[in-house]
Amino acid sequence: MTGITTPQGFRAAGVAAGLKSTGARDVALVVNDGPLRTAAAVLTSNRVQAAPVLWTRQAVSDGAARAVVLNSGGANACTGPEGFADTHRTAEHVAATLSASAATPEDEVGAADVLVCSTGLIGVRLPMDALLAGVDAAAGALSPDGGDAAAHAIMTTDTVAKQAEQVRDGWAVGGMAKGAGMLAPGLATMLSVVTTDAVVDAATADAALRAATRTTFDRVDSDGCMSTNDTVILLASGASGVTPTAEELTEAVTAVCADLARRLVADAEGASHDIAVTVTHASDEDAAVAVARAVTRSNLFKAAIFGNDPNWGRVVAAAGTVPEDVAPFDPLAIDVTINGVQVCRAGGVGEPRELVDLAAGREVRVEIDLHAGDATATVWTNDLTHDYVHENSAYSS
Amino acid sequence: MTGITTPQGFRAAGVAAGLKSTGARDVALVVNDGPLRTAAAVLTSNRVQAAPVLWTRQAVSDGAARAVVLNSGGANACTGPEGFADTHRTAEHVAATLSASAATPEDEVGAADVLVCSTGLIGVRLPMDALLAGVDAAAGALSPDGGDAAAHAIMTTDTVAKQAEQVRDGWAVGGMAKGAGMLAPGLATMLSVVTTDAVVDAATADAALRAATRTTFDRVDSDGCMSTNDTVILLASGASGVTPTAEELTEAVTAVCADLARRLVADAEGASHDIAVTVTHASDEDAAVAVARAVTRSNLFKAAIFGNDPNWGRVVAAAGTVPEDVAPFDPLAIDVTINGVQVCRAGGVGEPRELVDLAAGREVRVEIDLHAGDATATVWTNDLTHDYVHENSAYSS
Repeated sequence: MTGITTPQGFRAAGVAAGLKSTGARDVALVVNDGPLRTAAAVLTSNRVQAAPVLWTRQAVSDGAARAVVLNSGGANACTGPEGFADTHRTAEHVAATLSASAATPEDEVGAADVLVCSTGLIGVRLPMDALLAGVDAAAGALSPDGGDAAAHAIMTTDTVAKQAEQVRDGWAVGGMAKGAGMLAPGLATMLSVVTTDAVVDAATADAALRAATRTTFDRVDSDGCMSTNDTVILLASGASGVTPTAEELTEAVTAVCADLARRLVADAEGASHDIAVTVTHASDEDAAVAVARAVTRSNLFKAAIFGNDPNWGRVVAAAGTVPEDVAPFDPLAIDVTINGVQVCRAGGVGEPRELVDLAAGREVRVEIDLHAGDATATVWTNDLTHDYVHENSAYSS
Repeated sequence: MTGITTPQGFRAAGVAAGLKSTGARDVALVVNDGPLRTAAAVLTSNRVQAAPVLWTRQAVSDGAARAVVLNSGGANACTGPEGFADTHRTAEHVAATLSASAATPEDEVGAADVLVCSTGLIGVRLPMDALLAGVDAAAGALSPDGGDAAAHAIMTTDTVAKQAEQVRDGWAVGGMAKGAGMLAPGLATMLSVVTTDAVVDAATADAALRAATRTTFDRVDSDGCMSTNDTVILLASGASGVTPTAEELTEAVTAVCADLARRLVADAEGASHDIAVTVTHASDEDAAVAVARAVTRSNLFKAAIFGNDPNWGRVVAAAGTVPEDVAPFDPLAIDVTINGVQVCRAGGVGEPRELVDLAAGREVRVEIDLHAGDATATVWTNDLTHDYVHENSAYSS
């Protein structure tokens, strides 16, 4: 799979700069060779924002970017003005390096054209000498086939690189992600870069990315912990010459984000089950999401699934914590179905819980029918396991 | 310690009725012999409410009660109309049993004078024959020294009975609790009965109990899971003949509830640390509680403490998830102190984290200074451990 370099007009690289003690790749560079330089970003809503998030928010505000530099091995969060200066210096270094090989004055890159993402331990300065040397190496390694190397360079506790692609009629969308995120929080962050060679203006790109993340990355919630560094970036080169409709673009970007989000769940730290909690017949979509999220955030429910225990009482109890003005429903009306067995009917005992098989596979499907409307939503999570506790206690991140 | 039978005017008992497979005590009875029959209750705010919660809410609405019957070994939640009928039948049986020994017609007890509490697995009917036989046995064993036996009969995964008492000038307050609760949710419920021999009317009792629980039981939050059965009851006999002021009553009831709440934390399932998260200089008390609760609900933070890792980045990241309209503060101003070491200063790196000793004792103190006002609040939680996952996955509850 070639991920972010599937669409035309992009080069990428991933190199080992020594930020990770393992010697694995830890600096990635993605360059949009145009002709368009359209960019959009969705950034963490955490009020504590890492330096690269503050930088990227500003740099992408004009709807354009030439490159994205990403590092693992350090989040550059809670590092004060010095940390922000480090991010600024990284962007300037990328700009200078890319400008050195510019064929024409228009190809020269400014620091404000460079978006920055970091992931790793909070509260520690980045080793700037190693990082800047890594930028030089990555710039030298840029390739139209570099998507896979870049996807590997942003891995932290990920066991596999995550890439996705969607090919349409004459244009394509590609993506990479690491996670982390609200998901597998060993390194506390979800990062994703999505590329397309469609002809897209900034407003359309922004709207498509927000619509896509709302129903994909935002519906993956392993432990309710929101990172200081979460970043999803969309770059459009226009190199295909094809202009899809806004709906077509949104559909393809959403498909790539959904694919990446599902891969994050499948690789979540320490998890032994992927759990899809679907709420049906809710009064509206927000209500469905609120109930699903309450269940996916219940440690009791998640621990029960780890124990292959279809403990529907914990599902119902979690649903009952959602305020009525957020999700109107009658607690005595709801049904709960786990892997096809309706273990709770009308708020009471349904089929025998012994009929539910949770040991057979990794995927668990929980459906909660609120009997309160027509809206549906699914939120993905993982079970709460010994390995989750181990990885997040033994490993400072 | 004599707990709920420390104040005059109360008898209690705890017997083994066979609801627990272990043969341990599982039915408790508390009788208020008056002369007053004042009662108040604070019940779970979960919208999914067990049959005994629905019953008790109604029975206590007149501000009076003669007795409380409590059982472990079954929550009687999500059991439909049949479950409610079981609770009703239990209350009627207690009323009839107590009325049989009534000396005068005024001593006769109606079902509506009996409050009911249950704790155990959700979605399973209670074994009524065993329970009603247990009520008979408990009624026969009622004693002015029975507080300790009752406190043992409500234990579930508790390793010790929890009791507390406060003696004032001529009057006293006593209490027992089991937890569970939002705390150690093996059996999904926190139950507490608090007694006093002070002369108290219903409105004063209700106000005192609400004020006490707001700053004690409501500030203990091991895993954010709210039970379908949580119940705290205050009974006043007036037997001392002393009428404290409302402030004096509230102070003593709060002291008992705080003592019990601290005991719940100390005995939380699978925990190896008790963690007090104190937020100082918040704009108001609600803001302080919201920030403290966000931290106590962070699995990442709780797992780090289990690993003796003073990971202040996870504290700051959790604080940053609280919306600004709930808790206004500047993320670049906050300080975090863990066990006396200010590891985060002004949102950035403070003293070296290596100076923090988390291995020495069970108690951990985290202080978050928001520099945004004058309000303070503390929320208690526990660490997230292998044993928590084990107890809540291997044990259906």
